[in-house]
Amino acid sequence: MSSSFGRIFRISTFGESHCAGVGVVVDGVPPRMSLSAADIQIQLDRRRPGGNKLGTERNEADQVQILSGIENGLTLGTPIGMLVKNKDQRPGDYGSMSQIPRPSHADYTYQQKYGIHASSGGGRSSARETIGRVAAGAIAEKYLYEEYGIEIVAWVSSVGDYDTNNIDMEIITRAEVDANEIRCPDTQAAEKMTGEIIAAREAKDSVGGVVSCVCRNLPAGLGEPVFDRLEAKLAHAMLSLPATKGFEIGSGFSGSRMRGSLHNDPFIQKGDRLGTTTNYSGGVQGGISNGESVYFRVAFKPPATIGQEQQTVDFSGNATILAAKGRHDPCVVPRAIPIVETMTALVLADLALIQKIRN
Amino acid sequence: MSSSFGRIFRISTFGESHCAGVGVVVDGVPPRMSLSAADIQIQLDRRRPGGNKLGTERNEADQVQILSGIENGLTLGTPIGMLVKNKDQRPGDYGSMSQIPRPSHADYTYQQKYGIHASSGGGRSSARETIGRVAAGAIAEKYLYEEYGIEIVAWVSSVGDYDTNNIDMEIITRAEVDANEIRCPDTQAAEKMTGEIIAAREAKDSVGGVVSCVCRNLPAGLGEPVFDRLEAKLAHAMLSLPATKGFEIGSGFSGSRMRGSLHNDPFIQKGDRLGTTTNYSGGVQGGISNGESVYFRVAFKPPATIGQEQQTVDFSGNATILAAKGRHDPCVVPRAIPIVETMTALVLADLALIQKIRN
Amino acid sequence: MSSSFGRIFRISTFGESHCAGVGVVVDGVPPRMSLSAADIQIQLDRRRPGGNKLGTERNEADQVQILSGIENGLTLGTPIGMLVKNKDQRPGDYGSMSQIPRPSHADYTYQQKYGIHASSGGGRSSARETIGRVAAGAIAEKYLYEEYGIEIVAWVSSVGDYDTNNIDMEIITRAEVDANEIRCPDTQAAEKMTGEIIAAREAKDSVGGVVSCVCRNLPAGLGEPVFDRLEAKLAHAMLSLPATKGFEIGSGFSGSRMRGSLHNDPFIQKGDRLGTTTNYSGGVQGGISNGESVYFRVAFKPPATIGQEQQTVDFSGNATILAAKGRHDPCVVPRAIPIVETMTALVLADLALIQKIRN
Amino acid sequence: MSSSFGRIFRISTFGESHCAGVGVVVDGVPPRMSLSAADIQIQLDRRRPGGNKLGTERNEADQVQILSGIENGLTLGTPIGMLVKNKDQRPGDYGSMSQIPRPSHADYTYQQKYGIHASSGGGRSSARETIGRVAAGAIAEKYLYEEYGIEIVAWVSSVGDYDTNNIDMEIITRAEVDANEIRCPDTQAAEKMTGEIIAAREAKDSVGGVVSCVCRNLPAGLGEPVFDRLEAKLAHAMLSLPATKGFEIGSGFSGSRMRGSLHNDPFIQKGDRLGTTTNYSGGVQGGISNGESVYFRVAFKPPATIGQEQQTVDFSGNATILAAKGRHDPCVVPRAIPIVETMTALVLADLALIQKIRN
Repeated sequence: MSSSFGRIFRISTFGESHCAGVGVVVDGVPPRMSLSAADIQIQLDRRRPGGNKLGTERNEADQVQILSGIENGLTLGTPIGMLVKNKDQRPGDYGSMSQIPRPSHADYTYQQKYGIHASSGGGRSSARETIGRVAAGAIAEKYLYEEYGIEIVAWVSSVGDYDTNNIDMEIITRAEVDANEIRCPDTQAAEKMTGEIIAAREAKDSVGGVVSCVCRNLPAGLGEPVFDRLEAKLAHAMLSLPATKGFEIGSGFSGSRMRGSLHNDPFIQKGDRLGTTTNYSGGVQGGISNGESVYFRVAFKPPATIGQEQQTVDFSGNATILAAKGRHDPCVVPRAIPIVETMTALVLADLALIQKIRN
Repeated sequence: MSSSFGRIFRISTFGESHCAGVGVVVDGVPPRMSLSAADIQIQLDRRRPGGNKLGTERNEADQVQILSGIENGLTLGTPIGMLVKNKDQRPGDYGSMSQIPRPSHADYTYQQKYGIHASSGGGRSSARETIGRVAAGAIAEKYLYEEYGIEIVAWVSSVGDYDTNNIDMEIITRAEVDANEIRCPDTQAAEKMTGEIIAAREAKDSVGGVVSCVCRNLPAGLGEPVFDRLEAKLAHAMLSLPATKGFEIGSGFSGSRMRGSLHNDPFIQKGDRLGTTTNYSGGVQGGISNGESVYFRVAFKPPATIGQEQQTVDFSGNATILAAKGRHDPCVVPRAIPIVETMTALVLADLALIQKIRN
Repeated sequence: MSSSFGRIFRISTFGESHCAGVGVVVDGVPPRMSLSAADIQIQLDRRRPGGNKLGTERNEADQVQILSGIENGLTLGTPIGMLVKNKDQRPGDYGSMSQIPRPSHADYTYQQKYGIHASSGGGRSSARETIGRVAAGAIAEKYLYEEYGIEIVAWVSSVGDYDTNNIDMEIITRAEVDANEIRCPDTQAAEKMTGEIIAAREAKDSVGGVVSCVCRNLPAGLGEPVFDRLEAKLAHAMLSLPATKGFEIGSGFSGSRMRGSLHNDPFIQKGDRLGTTTNYSGGVQGGISNGESVYFRVAFKPPATIGQEQQTVDFSGNATILAAKGRHDPCVVPRAIPIVETMTALVLADLALIQKIRN
Repeated sequence: MSSSFGRIFRISTFGESHCAGVGVVVDGVPPRMSLSAADIQIQLDRRRPGGNKLGTERNEADQVQILSGIENGLTLGTPIGMLVKNKDQRPGDYGSMSQIPRPSHADYTYQQKYGIHASSGGGRSSARETIGRVAAGAIAEKYLYEEYGIEIVAWVSSVGDYDTNNIDMEIITRAEVDANEIRCPDTQAAEKMTGEIIAAREAKDSVGGVVSCVCRNLPAGLGEPVFDRLEAKLAHAMLSLPATKGFEIGSGFSGSRMRGSLHNDPFIQKGDRLGTTTNYSGGVQGGISNGESVYFRVAFKPPATIGQEQQTVDFSGNATILAAKGRHDPCVVPRAIPIVETMTALVLADLALIQKIRN
């Protein structure tokens, strides 16, 4: 009973990797918004595994079908149901693994929790589950942009040991991010990251990475103390994504090494509002947006499914060797970009609508 | 409307730094538990600012009063109300700052959000707000230990640039943590950390740090996919604490630099259950506990309130100099230890009770 | 953002009367339940408007499609998505009414609330919205019967001024209820009710009625004081149904006229549990089931859409005459039977799962 | 875990009849409202058992203490904690009953649910629990009146078989209601009701009654389809009160006997809005307020605690005679008036704040 997220702009997702389809019901979408399937398809297409040399070869159209909540191109304020059919199921690829819980995958824990687990693919732990989130988040993004001019841009800031340099968060665009397959706008770093991913794939291995994200043009006042602080909701959203291991906002872990006299962000007048001269806070103070850009980073582990042979045990505890067949990404961060953006949008839309109560 | 946390074991906190008192209502506590104020006072005392050379000099007894939910030493299954009176209010200390939003503090954002803010102290953004959480979490801890033998131990793993070495998470105890004021069980590191905090205080400055935490003896199966994964709830809980900037579980950000063949935790038989030979996952897979120890780290920024003069502007945008008077900690991590532990307990108790539905 | 119901067994419905389809996501269904579309279709078929002389002539197959959450005939414990396509949309029938808010219908209030309303049919206020509830409730019913032997039976107890007599709630079955079209197991009353409905239809009018419902074999202990008392949740569920105006449990309004010495239900030993000699309480005390049968009554107003000419005004306030074309039921209570039953099941399944936390 | 009510204007109550105190945390109160203890005490005083010939003789000052959320007479937008101490505990009065579950009281069901029950008084099932609701609801009332001019007036409309006549809901005031002890503004009926209550008390018996309530000046648009319809939330709120057995809105059960041509409320222009010529709907259509007065009725059973001897069994099933000692009301409806009003205010304030999201 935890497939819902948000309080006012609230989504409920459904679907396993190999059932009839995956989808979402989005409740709380403001009425009278112009909205079409094309608005949603954009991010679904960015999320979709391409046929390129970096991603998996699974080819899924992932066309969204809007089931309800819109009439004549306008939202009614009622729940928007959306469905993406699973066309390419191929459960057989995974069949041989069903008696062996894949190391660092969720087979074992789902079995322990529910006494049953999806026999193929990852069930709800599959990345395919994120389709519903992305479809819903695309609506949230549109609302935030039209209502506030909010822009959300994520990019790959590291793969393995290769990091970006000199990304200017205040101006970076999605077009720049999408300029290469790795979705890293630092061209030199992108080249090294690509090499690392190819090397991992050739070694039948996988590699982790970090996604950075910035939100610009947020009004001050978003975030609900004390338990639904903006950063708490973002952290919750990001750590609910498959394969994530860490979240940091503003100065993050490196901020823990600083002195307050340096870390504090002094106020200055910026046009008709107060702003700050630095932004170690990452755009939040006391859990509430202050009008500066919100930025954060999310750590993704290397994917658990690898082609290499692994020494492990089956569900009965018998030693065995596992080598994954089937399709699998050597690195998830390029595809994670739209997922991080849309989850961010879900958090912000919810908090923005809640703040309307006080206006 | 976001002063509540948890779904089944659910807390609602109240109270500002300088009102009549702070407290909490805890709903969903299992009935027939033996419980007294002494059980709760232990963690409140650990949280309380001591009169020592590291903490603030504010002296508050912080005696908890149980208002309801217990009869003859047993819980009734009904809400437990708890109150800690504010004895030492001294709002005058802060009076001079009320027209100047403190840099990196919540004065400005609360004013933007609510159109009003507590004239003294930090209101709800004060660390004093955490008293209700700690009181509630102490009940959760007791439940988890009695029902499952779960042990939760946190410690200071860094202050500024000084880090611990060689902490064995599987055996570390609270007694070892409390053996020094800094709550760092690595004696050599503790000495350097103490020096750093004293140096910061003498410079009228502050310094950040990192708290580590381990949860032992968790049963497999806790955590609710997809949005209430164990790590998502922990991240939410930790980032809801004042002054936090980051969270990582298991391998965390360093895991993003690894290859899957190393990062994967192979299964082996451990007694009557499956376990893993390594634990890069941090005890969770697919958002569900796997029976191994859960461990994570939380980054705290340097406190925003410092005695040094800071160039900033007042609410009207006029340039001014601010130098905080009043009491303030140069470093929060030693006092954060019981807060991190009890917030962890709140997350685990909630997830453990939810999992009972499936038994 | 209020298309969800339940805390643990939680449903989220979507769909208007004339969009692509209506459906539901059911979260919290216990894992490892045997479940097929046929289990759900039973109540959908009972809910469906028949081609008979009492109901509307709209012919909709209303075949449910299960989208997720089930594998090899067993529930996975993950969300179950279900969809029923809208085949017979005919929006033109309603087109002429779009500028005139139908008296006692929701056109005007939806427009006031959202600034927009579905141009045809009733949008979300249409009885068609209840399809999602019924599909979800059919799962809840199956769970309750298999886990506890709980039986839920509803019947028509009045239409207009015609009331049932001598219904024995402890033994009445659905087969007896379905023995006639009016779903009234008192044959003599059923005949009069049928006459009343036909008379109303011939007068291009409509008529109200009352549905009674009994739940047998409930264990003691269901219901959550103080705000989620069993009767409060049932009242909430029933008054959330279109066209309902009243709810009473046990002695209900007539109980308000009694003395306590008569109304009190004395305890006696019944097998291995305590029972009561009378049941004015309706199976609940202090909001918690006591092991006796729970029974209640729900009042339905006459349908607002009638063929008679009505003097009213359009949205601009201009006087006009409205006479509904299109299909419409002269009386909703026969079709409301499975809706009342399945909403009851949703309430009980949720409370039964919550009570498991204490076992 | 169900001692909370509301989504945005959200209350969490605590306290048993004989613990240290009863109270409430109110989250979501709009900031910058003028508010003092006196604003709250008004309804607490109306709720308090008087020393008069109709009520119990228990004398409790029931002075509310505001713990948090207000500074300099203005709300901060943060949680408002409130406490009323239990001064007059006298648990001994009930001691003799602890082995015998009182017929139609909650002793037995609490024991079945929790495996424990408060040894004296009714614990959480006591009417004393409603103090927290009333304190919170008084804030909601003040907000609704100041923001919208909403007036909520309840009165006793029947006691036993004695009913009111000729109450004009559009103009009745609280002053008129409070003009007599029975809180029935129909003087002749009030006299008969008083006689009935005295007769019941002299017979060591109790008697039920009905409370009516009207809400005037509601804006159109309040109520959230489909599950949080205005009438569904009101029904939930009312049936969550101790001793309630029924709820009806507008035409209610009598409406189920009507034809649609009579029951429909035709629209007319009323000033600058549409209104209706009749109001059988009770001010709601499709679960949303339409701008007409909302009115409803609540049935209360006769109190279960009576002085007469009752044949029953103890917890072990042994036959016994029970005759209640201690204080007890022969009829609860006069004291229920402020409770019904404040619960209504809680529902409306929550829905009004939610609707702000769409403005």
